Amino acid sequence: MAEKLRSFVEVQEDSHFPLQNLPYGVFSTAEEPRARCGTRIGDFVLDLAALEEASLLATRYFDRPGLNAFMAAGQAVWTATRQRLQHLLSAETPDLRDDTALLARALVPVDRVTMHLPAQIGDYTDFYSSRYHAENVGHMVRGAANALMPNWRHLPVAYHGRASSLVVSGTPIRRPLGQMQPGDAGAPVFGPSQALDFELELGFLVGPGNELGDPIPVSQAYRHIFGFVLVNDWSARDIQRWEYRPLGPFLGKNFATTLSPWVVTLDALEPFICNGPVQDPEPLSYLRSKNHWTYDIQLEIRLRSAAMDTPATVSRTNFRHLYWNVCQQLAHHTVNGCNLRPGDLLASGTISGPVPDSYGSLLELAWGGSRPIALPDGSQRVYLEDGDTVILTGWCQGNGYRVGFGEARGAVQAARPITETMGEMR
Amino acid sequence: MAEKLRSFVEVQEDSHFPLQNLPYGVFSTAEEPRARCGTRIGDFVLDLAALEEASLLATRYFDRPGLNAFMAAGQAVWTATRQRLQHLLSAETPDLRDDTALLARALVPVDRVTMHLPAQIGDYTDFYSSRYHAENVGHMVRGAANALMPNWRHLPVAYHGRASSLVVSGTPIRRPLGQMQPGDAGAPVFGPSQALDFELELGFLVGPGNELGDPIPVSQAYRHIFGFVLVNDWSARDIQRWEYRPLGPFLGKNFATTLSPWVVTLDALEPFICNGPVQDPEPLSYLRSKNHWTYDIQLEIRLRSAAMDTPATVSRTNFRHLYWNVCQQLAHHTVNGCNLRPGDLLASGTISGPVPDSYGSLLELAWGGSRPIALPDGSQRVYLEDGDTVILTGWCQGNGYRVGFGEARGAVQAARPITETMGEMR
Repeated sequence: MAEKLRSFVEVQEDSHFPLQNLPYGVFSTAEEPRARCGTRIGDFVLDLAALEEASLLATRYFDRPGLNAFMAAGQAVWTATRQRLQHLLSAETPDLRDDTALLARALVPVDRVTMHLPAQIGDYTDFYSSRYHAENVGHMVRGAANALMPNWRHLPVAYHGRASSLVVSGTPIRRPLGQMQPGDAGAPVFGPSQALDFELELGFLVGPGNELGDPIPVSQAYRHIFGFVLVNDWSARDIQRWEYRPLGPFLGKNFATTLSPWVVTLDALEPFICNGPVQDPEPLSYLRSKNHWTYDIQLEIRLRSAAMDTPATVSRTNFRHLYWNVCQQLAHHTVNGCNLRPGDLLASGTISGPVPDSYGSLLELAWGGSRPIALPDGSQRVYLEDGDTVILTGWCQGNGYRVGFGEARGAVQAARPITETMGEMR
Repeated sequence: MAEKLRSFVEVQEDSHFPLQNLPYGVFSTAEEPRARCGTRIGDFVLDLAALEEASLLATRYFDRPGLNAFMAAGQAVWTATRQRLQHLLSAETPDLRDDTALLARALVPVDRVTMHLPAQIGDYTDFYSSRYHAENVGHMVRGAANALMPNWRHLPVAYHGRASSLVVSGTPIRRPLGQMQPGDAGAPVFGPSQALDFELELGFLVGPGNELGDPIPVSQAYRHIFGFVLVNDWSARDIQRWEYRPLGPFLGKNFATTLSPWVVTLDALEPFICNGPVQDPEPLSYLRSKNHWTYDIQLEIRLRSAAMDTPATVSRTNFRHLYWNVCQQLAHHTVNGCNLRPGDLLASGTISGPVPDSYGSLLELAWGGSRPIALPDGSQRVYLEDGDTVILTGWCQGNGYRVGFGEARGAVQAARPITETMGEMR
């Protein structure tokens, strides 16, 4: 199948989107504002609805504003579609390559598209699966001796996030207002968060779901995973710290969560499967999985202040550092009968590595404010400032090619002014 | 408008559904399996899609499987529609009363309908707004001296629930499997929950939403509330106790949440507005509301074991006991810019009253297992047993009529057997 690996569309060696990737996303253009599904090849988006219309694809999934129907179709359809697209985009296949009229319509330069969320996401769950992250946060809150909660090594801890405020890369992030208790004592105050942070995560979107009451065994979990996106779970640490006991994060998280627009499939990631960490103690039977359900995905966090021309890399880590794998997460989520639906998002939680410059949040990188990080413009950061842009990116390094995720980007806007009308007239 | 208060449809004095109520719901029938919107009058469902088709209603909201479009239309449309329906159903109005053919089609006996969820619910948030409940639970966990967390009287604590597992009244509830730590020490075990509980709540469904980044001031919050339903937030206390630190409830709650099918509107509830409890300390400005945004709603929990013919009432309480009101909940939820969408569910949290027979959960009624409650069949309950049916109900008592919520009912089924296939083959 070597001929499949070169496309008639030019792809640079460091591109995230060669023929080996072919992620799925939803886009529109100024000429055709109808949101529809596409794939990405080099610096172009290939309009899959146009390919269906031209009968180059026999499917009927892509002329829709979300990938949910395709996600529900399952692994056999995904693999067949991927093989067909690799064939159509191959340098050796004339069908699309020589159809000038169709190419003009269906192959759109990326600078002419607007990307949207890849699916209608019914529910968003956020795990807490990085041991380094859980230990770092626990260390800061409870001290090194009690860093990890007793349950942490026995189950993949998670909570429900907010689906309505999931936004696609590029959406501005407004600094949230909220209630906080400065100094962790005395009367609370109301105002803009002074501790706005990012969290580097990777999330997967669910393929076929399950009926309420029917758990998905860990051995079958991979069949229910469609693909992965980058996730920035923006967090207001001061709001979170005051509100979270005893029911967990709420307004400290739900003001916005940014996703990268291209969903990278399990087929594209398969060459990069690797072993996860040894799990000790051995998990209970319903969580025992083969130890190869993680991936070697290099991840970076880049930060650019308003005064900087180019972003600086502030952290480098890897998806393989996660303690709990995606099959364990999915089996755990459904073991009580909870139903997943196609397009649901299950995110990893902050992905921190073992060393300080591999941490996935400013909370950890600046160690709770005690070790400010330096930026090339001469400024320092403990938390984010207005005008800062955060860019998450990641890729798998193949032999002469990359399978990448593009980026999840967001720029911080100043908080809304506090107005008299926020209180009741009386 | 006295003539409006008698319908040509017979309504018993203790019915929950007189002309003063007119709640909205979604139903289907064997003859017409298309889910559509209706209202309820006495023991009949009035098909609002049929009324639109017959041009007795000028709207175009009701021939859909959810009320979301009507919810988005806002207060003026809701009130005009209610007035029109009260007129059409009045004993004095001939249009519908004398149209035998239309009545045969549009007025369906309740025993011939299947009820569905009233809306597509994008996100479900659960508050923790009963001080009695929070104090009872805190007392059991941390002792009487530290019953209430320091944040509790300053903000309406809440967490995100699971939208996919919201089910309509009547749906069987399968006892969840899960991971627990018996005796709160030692290695965790896997099996059926031994501490399955109900939670009596009332929830509201959002009308017009808000854009991401734009808070809804507390003074405007009531304009964004469409109406109320009963909510049973089924809880597996043993799963919850082991998993919830530090990120809150997850599998202990998300296996099922039952809603009553009829949404009772703010207009119907207006005669029952009353003052809530005095709030001390005074809330921060963004939470300061007039003190009349609660309602005098009588609530009951009924329990029937498999051996009982009729249910026994195990708790009587009232919605007015809640400390935080719905306008405060909605303003708090959006103050950070979080966006609400039409149909979103914001539930109250367990509604417990001040005395032991007014508590809203078995956890409290049986005080953590130490005070089993007796049932008429001679059995006792600490938590729910297989075959138990839980029925939540509630109503406002008017002068010679009731505005009621019907019921949220669910029967407990045995857990699924644990099979070999739940673990990975290896």
